[in-house]
Amino acid sequence: MTETLRVAVIGAGRMGADHIQRLNTRIHGAQVAAVVDVDLPRAEAAVEGIAGAVALADAEGALRNGDVNAVLIATPGFLHEDILLKAVALDLPILCEKPLTPDAASAWRVVQAEQKLGRTRIQVGFMRRYDAEYAQLGAMIRDGELGELLMLHCAHRNPDTPPGFTNEMLINDSVVHEFDAVRFLTGEEITSVQVRLGKASRNAPAGQHDPQQVLIETESGVLADVEIFVNAQFGYEVATQATFEQGIVNIGGDGGAYVRSAGRWGGRATPGFIERFGAAYDVEVQAWADAARRGEIGGPSAWDGYATAACCEAGVAAQKSGVRETVQLNAKPGLYS
Amino acid sequence: MTETLRVAVIGAGRMGADHIQRLNTRIHGAQVAAVVDVDLPRAEAAVEGIAGAVALADAEGALRNGDVNAVLIATPGFLHEDILLKAVALDLPILCEKPLTPDAASAWRVVQAEQKLGRTRIQVGFMRRYDAEYAQLGAMIRDGELGELLMLHCAHRNPDTPPGFTNEMLINDSVVHEFDAVRFLTGEEITSVQVRLGKASRNAPAGQHDPQQVLIETESGVLADVEIFVNAQFGYEVATQATFEQGIVNIGGDGGAYVRSAGRWGGRATPGFIERFGAAYDVEVQAWADAARRGEIGGPSAWDGYATAACCEAGVAAQKSGVRETVQLNAKPGLYS
Amino acid sequence: MTETLRVAVIGAGRMGADHIQRLNTRIHGAQVAAVVDVDLPRAEAAVEGIAGAVALADAEGALRNGDVNAVLIATPGFLHEDILLKAVALDLPILCEKPLTPDAASAWRVVQAEQKLGRTRIQVGFMRRYDAEYAQLGAMIRDGELGELLMLHCAHRNPDTPPGFTNEMLINDSVVHEFDAVRFLTGEEITSVQVRLGKASRNAPAGQHDPQQVLIETESGVLADVEIFVNAQFGYEVATQATFEQGIVNIGGDGGAYVRSAGRWGGRATPGFIERFGAAYDVEVQAWADAARRGEIGGPSAWDGYATAACCEAGVAAQKSGVRETVQLNAKPGLYS
Amino acid sequence: MTETLRVAVIGAGRMGADHIQRLNTRIHGAQVAAVVDVDLPRAEAAVEGIAGAVALADAEGALRNGDVNAVLIATPGFLHEDILLKAVALDLPILCEKPLTPDAASAWRVVQAEQKLGRTRIQVGFMRRYDAEYAQLGAMIRDGELGELLMLHCAHRNPDTPPGFTNEMLINDSVVHEFDAVRFLTGEEITSVQVRLGKASRNAPAGQHDPQQVLIETESGVLADVEIFVNAQFGYEVATQATFEQGIVNIGGDGGAYVRSAGRWGGRATPGFIERFGAAYDVEVQAWADAARRGEIGGPSAWDGYATAACCEAGVAAQKSGVRETVQLNAKPGLYS
Repeated sequence: MTETLRVAVIGAGRMGADHIQRLNTRIHGAQVAAVVDVDLPRAEAAVEGIAGAVALADAEGALRNGDVNAVLIATPGFLHEDILLKAVALDLPILCEKPLTPDAASAWRVVQAEQKLGRTRIQVGFMRRYDAEYAQLGAMIRDGELGELLMLHCAHRNPDTPPGFTNEMLINDSVVHEFDAVRFLTGEEITSVQVRLGKASRNAPAGQHDPQQVLIETESGVLADVEIFVNAQFGYEVATQATFEQGIVNIGGDGGAYVRSAGRWGGRATPGFIERFGAAYDVEVQAWADAARRGEIGGPSAWDGYATAACCEAGVAAQKSGVRETVQLNAKPGLYS
Repeated sequence: MTETLRVAVIGAGRMGADHIQRLNTRIHGAQVAAVVDVDLPRAEAAVEGIAGAVALADAEGALRNGDVNAVLIATPGFLHEDILLKAVALDLPILCEKPLTPDAASAWRVVQAEQKLGRTRIQVGFMRRYDAEYAQLGAMIRDGELGELLMLHCAHRNPDTPPGFTNEMLINDSVVHEFDAVRFLTGEEITSVQVRLGKASRNAPAGQHDPQQVLIETESGVLADVEIFVNAQFGYEVATQATFEQGIVNIGGDGGAYVRSAGRWGGRATPGFIERFGAAYDVEVQAWADAARRGEIGGPSAWDGYATAACCEAGVAAQKSGVRETVQLNAKPGLYS
Repeated sequence: MTETLRVAVIGAGRMGADHIQRLNTRIHGAQVAAVVDVDLPRAEAAVEGIAGAVALADAEGALRNGDVNAVLIATPGFLHEDILLKAVALDLPILCEKPLTPDAASAWRVVQAEQKLGRTRIQVGFMRRYDAEYAQLGAMIRDGELGELLMLHCAHRNPDTPPGFTNEMLINDSVVHEFDAVRFLTGEEITSVQVRLGKASRNAPAGQHDPQQVLIETESGVLADVEIFVNAQFGYEVATQATFEQGIVNIGGDGGAYVRSAGRWGGRATPGFIERFGAAYDVEVQAWADAARRGEIGGPSAWDGYATAACCEAGVAAQKSGVRETVQLNAKPGLYS
Repeated sequence: MTETLRVAVIGAGRMGADHIQRLNTRIHGAQVAAVVDVDLPRAEAAVEGIAGAVALADAEGALRNGDVNAVLIATPGFLHEDILLKAVALDLPILCEKPLTPDAASAWRVVQAEQKLGRTRIQVGFMRRYDAEYAQLGAMIRDGELGELLMLHCAHRNPDTPPGFTNEMLINDSVVHEFDAVRFLTGEEITSVQVRLGKASRNAPAGQHDPQQVLIETESGVLADVEIFVNAQFGYEVATQATFEQGIVNIGGDGGAYVRSAGRWGGRATPGFIERFGAAYDVEVQAWADAARRGEIGGPSAWDGYATAACCEAGVAAQKSGVRETVQLNAKPGLYS
C-alpha cells in the first residue's frame, strides 16, 4: 500500500502537461516516471527538472518499462483504445482522460478487455464527480432530504472554441461531460436525447451552430436540459439547477452552492475554522515543504511572530485601560527585511 | 531539492493530528517520520498505519533522530520557545503553529536565535496568508488598482469557545490572526490598539466579555476595526471589508470575494475550465493514486466511458434529425455493478 | 387630463379586493366609484369606508352610471367577453385582468370590437411588463448592448395550487404569463409550443402532472424553455435567465437582477440616494399625507430632530477633540413619549 | 378623513422639486396647492402644468392661503425654524426635510412650540425609517428572534460631494441619518460619540478629511461604528450589519437583506405573487390611470390578450400530443401596430 506510484504519462499536450505538473508538485505518493509523446522534444521538455523521469516516443516501451507501475493517458481520443488494451493486458492502473474512446463500439471493446481480465483497471477522467459542488448535489439527491429529483437545468458555456471545433465536437467533447454528470447525479442511464437548434450567435465560426439545447431523459423520467454555448464570450460557466419535489438547488453559480427550500433561500454557514481554512492549511504546509526541500524558508517569519506578540500585549492592556495603547517594537533586524 | 521531507511532528493534539493527516495523504514530497507527544499512547495512535514513522515522548530525541530533517510544532504555545531554540540550533526547517511564543520577550529571544544562526529557519502558522481570498485582497492592495487602502472592517466570529477561554485568550488566540492579517495586508506595522467593551451577549461564559471591538492603526494611518465575537452561535465567520480610495472589496463572505468599483458590484467571471475545475482535477488524480497504491481502481469506469459514448452517438444523430433519439446500450456487465 | 378617474371595479374576489385597496390608498388621480359583484354583500363589504363608492350586483348598470368613467375587470375569465364588449361600446378605458378571454376565438371577437370602434380601449393585466427587472431585461434586449438575444430559460414555481387546478389551467392560468413575457421581451410572436412530461412530484393532486417543461420558439428562432411547477412547496419564484451573444442576464433571483459579461459577474452599483431611497420617500410622504388627512401626525418627531441635532453637536466636537464626547440632552417632554 | 391634502411646498430646489413631482403623480389623496421659493421664477416653473397650484415668493402668505391645509418644508436648514414656528402656530400638519434645524438650541425652541400647542404637528424627513430593509431590521430587533442587539456596523458612502461640503457638514448632513437610524433601530438615545481620523483619500477636496469613522454608544451599551466616506467614487451605498446574540443581519447590500443564524445564511423565499409582483401591480394600475386621464390606453393590448390565448390553445394541445404544435394567429390588425 505504501509503494509510491511511478506514472507513465502518455501525451504531453495541454492536458498531459497539466497532469505532469500535478503529479510532480501536488499529489502525495505519486511521481512522474516517464512521459511519452510522438513529438519527442515535447516529451523531453516535459520531464526537464523531474528527477528520475524519462522521455520516450513510444507508449508500449513506457508501459513495459520496469520502473513504471501506473499509466495516465492524455493523448487525443482516437489513440486511447490501443494504449488502453495494452495497459489492461499488463494489469496496470489507468487514469484515462475522457473520452474513453471516440465511439460506442470501440468503448465496448475496452469494456470487454476489462471483463476478460476479470477486474477493473480504468478510471475515466470525468473530473466533475470530484468537484465539491457536484459531490454536494449528488449527496442531496441520494439523501432524499428534498424529496425526489425531478429536473436538471444545465448550462455549459465556454468563452470560445479552438479552430476546427465542429458541431459533432460540441456533443462529443463538451456535452459528454453533461451526459456523465446527469448519469452520476441520477444514478440512472440516459434513455433519449433531443437537440433544438434555434437562433445562432454571429460569433460562432462558419459551420458551427451555437448555442444548441440538448434535451435528455433518464430511466425514471428525470428531464434534463443543457444549454451548450461554446462562444459565450463573457467567460466560462458550468452550472446546474436541480428541481426537487421540495426545493431547488443551484451549483456552479457565481456565489457558491445554495438552496431554496421551506420558505428560505441560502446556504449552510461555515461551521468552523477547518472548513473555512482547510485548503489554506494544505497550501501553507505544501509551501513550507517545497521551500524546505530547496533549503529555504518562507512565509510568516519569527519577526511576524514577535510583532504580533507585541500587538497582543498592547491589546490585552487596552482591554483593561479602555484607551488607545501604543504597540512597542524593537528595531527590525536586517535578516527579516 | 528532490529529497523527501522527513518531518517530526511535535504535539499530537487537534492541530497536530490534523497536520499528520495532511502530511501523510495530501502533501507532495513530505512524509511523517516521527510524532512526539508527552502522552506517548496518543503519539502511538497517531503514527498507526504510517509506514516508517516512530512515536516518541521526547522532542529533543526526535530532532536528533537521523531520519528527521524537518520539524512541525503543534504543542501548546508555552512549550514553543524551548523546541524552537533547539531546532534552530540544529538548522532544521521549522513550521511553528501560532503563536510563535506567548509573549513579546520570549518571541524576541527566538528572533535573536535566528539572527545568531544567520538565516531564517522558522515559518509561523498564520495560515490566512495562504487563503485564496486574503491573497487576492493582498494583491489588490499592492497593485493599487483601486487606489490607496484606507480602512479595514474585520469580523471574527466563532460559534462558541472551549471551557476556560478567557478575555486575554480572546486577544492572544483569536485577534492575533487579525493582527497578522492587518500587517500582511498593509505591509505595515501596527502602531496602536484600542478596545471597546459595550453590551455583552448573555451567551458568554462567566468572566468573558463578548463581543468586543478592537480598533487598530497602522504606520500610514490605515484604520482597522475588528468585531471579535466568540460566542456568535450562528456558525463561523472570518470576513473583511476593505475601503479603498476608489472601491470596496469584501472577502470571507457567504458568496466569495467581490468588489464595488466604477459603478458596478460583482466579481470576476471564471475565465476557463482550469480555474473552475483545477481543484477537482487534483482531487481526481489523488483519488486515483490512492486507490492504485492499494491495488484498486475507483471513480468513473470503462462502463461510464462506454455509456457516455453511446449518448454522444445519440446526440450527434439528434442534432441532425431534430427529434428525440433513443440511446442504445448493451447489457451492463456484472463487473461494473 | 386632470379629471379624477372614477372606476367601476367588476368582481370583488381576491384580485378585485386587492385592486380596490390599491385604487383607494395608493393610486394618484383615481378613486373607486362602484364595486360590482353578483354576490352583493361581498360588493357592499368592499366599498365600506370608501366615500362616494356604491355597491352593485349588475355590471351593465355600473357602466352606465354617470359617475363612472373607467372600468377594471377582475371577474373569472369566462365573464370577460360580455363586459368587455359593453365597455368598449361605451368607449370606456378598461383594465382587464388576464386572460383577456378564455380562448382565441372569443379574444378575436374582442379585438374586432376595438377595431370597429377604431381605437384601443383595453389594457390587459400582464403586470410583469411593469416589474422593474422585466423592464430592465427588456431594455437590455432592445438596446443590444450584449448582442442578440438567443435563449430564455424561465422558471415559474408556485408553492401549491388551489383545489381543482387542472393540467389545462397550468397552461392557461400560469404559463400564459410566460407566453406574454416571451412576446414582450422578444417583441416577436410565438410560432410553436412543445410540452415535455417527465417524472412527476408526489405532491401534485390527482390528475395533475407537475412539473412540466414547455418549449417555445419565436419568429426569429429564439428558444425559450419554461419549467412550470405549481406544487414546488419551497415558496414562490418567477425567474428568467437570458442568454445573449455576449453575456447572460438573470432576473427574478434571490439577490436582484445581475449580469455576466466581459469577464465579470455582478450588477450596477446604486448611483445615488434617489435610487436607493426613492421608494422610501414615496412611502414617507404617503404616510404623512394619510395621517394628516386623519388630523394626525406620525413618524420622526420634533424630538427626533432635536436629539439628532444634539448628536451632531457632539460629533463635530469629537472630530476636533479625537476623544469620546458625551451627548447632552434635555429631559424628554411627555408629548413625545 | 377623506378631504384631499392641499400642500404648500416651501423651497423648489432639488428636494423640493422631487417632492412636488411625488405629490403630483404618485401620492393618493394629496395635491400641490402652492410652491414657495424666494426665486419666484423657480417656483413658477415648478407649478407649470399642475392645475390649481400657485407660485409664491413668500412662505407666510402660502401658509395663510385658505386653499392650503398642509406644509412640506424643503428649504435649506437655516430657514426651517421660522417657517416651523409659524406653521405650528397655525396648527398645520408639517413634513420637514431633515435637519429639523441646524443646532440643538433652535431645535429645542421648535420642540417647545409644539409643547405649547399641546400636540405634535411635525414629521421630520428621516426617510430611512420608511425603507423596507430598515423596517425589517427594526422589526427583528423588537421581536428579539435573534436575541439582543449588540453592535451595529454602518457604512455611508457617497460617490462625491458638492462644492463647499465641509468636515462639519459630513456630520450634520450625512452622519445625522445614521444618528437617527441608530436611535430608531435601538429605540434608545445616543450617549456618546467619538471620531477617528486616519488615512485620507486623495480624492477629497482641500479641507475635507475623508473618510472618517464615527463611534457611537447607546443607553444600553450597543456599540455602533459608522464609516462615513463621501468621496467613495464607486457609487452610493448605505448599509448596516447588525450583530445579535444569535445571528447577523445585513441590510443595504447589493443583494437585499439577509441573515446568518442557526447554521445557515440567506433570506426568506418570496412567499407568493403578491409579494413578488405587488409593486408591479401598483405601477401597472397607475400607468393605466394616468393614460386613461389623458384619454389614452397603453400597455398590453387586446391583441396581446388574443395572441396569448392562441399560445395557450397550442400549449394545451402540446400537453396531449407530446410533439411541437404550431401557434395559429390571424393577421395583426393595423390598430395594434
